Amino acid sequence: MEKVNYKSGSIIFDQGEAATQLFVISSGKVGIYFPTNEFTEEPNIVLNSPEIFGEMGLIDDALRMAGAKAETDCMLISVSKVEFEQKLENSDVIIRGVVAALSQRLRQLQKKKLK
Amino acid sequence: MEKVNYKSGSIIFDQGEAATQLFVISSGKVGIYFPTNEFTEEPNIVLNSPEIFGEMGLIDDALRMAGAKAETDCMLISVSKVEFEQKLENSDVIIRGVVAALSQRLRQLQKKKLK
Repeated sequence: MEKVNYKSGSIIFDQGEAATQLFVISSGKVGIYFPTNEFTEEPNIVLNSPEIFGEMGLIDDALRMAGAKAETDCMLISVSKVEFEQKLENSDVIIRGVVAALSQRLRQLQKKKLK
Repeated sequence: MEKVNYKSGSIIFDQGEAATQLFVISSGKVGIYFPTNEFTEEPNIVLNSPEIFGEMGLIDDALRMAGAKAETDCMLISVSKVEFEQKLENSDVIIRGVVAALSQRLRQLQKKKLK
């Protein structure tokens, strides 16, 4: 895990990129931009500390479906895919199942919204 | 945790009920019915072993938003709210954050679909 700083307005990740880490917001605001919104409109969701984002691609090994942009100067804690997978492997089987179930349902709903 | 059997066609839980447990499918098929579908149409999702359902209400303490029905004779493993919470408390802080983030986004998307 490491701390990373993003200046206001900088893109943290874009749709279609490989997911190599998740982020915990330490300070600042992060905008999440859904697939039909390529950083042009207002963010679909604005997240604050201590919320987490970027976890979806790590869980199901898919490309980024949404984009993330620093809406203010931000300090984020970056958790790599390997670190996250270790934490998940050390979790109870029910917790691992819940993470898988939530992630799968979220992807299904997101895909339906695109149709 | 305990094993529970449901006959084909029996309702496991209905929308609006309090969420007291989650289920792991040990055998059989379970249909999930979204809010606009009160067991009258085909299920919106059909789940099989070893999938998990009913976790949403445990995570954010909300009432059941979807209904669940046994589509065939089913054997389920029931995990109580207290058991689940203990497992979650024993998990790494990042895993707990991921469970919270996924759950929150899923609720938001489900609510949008209702509008």
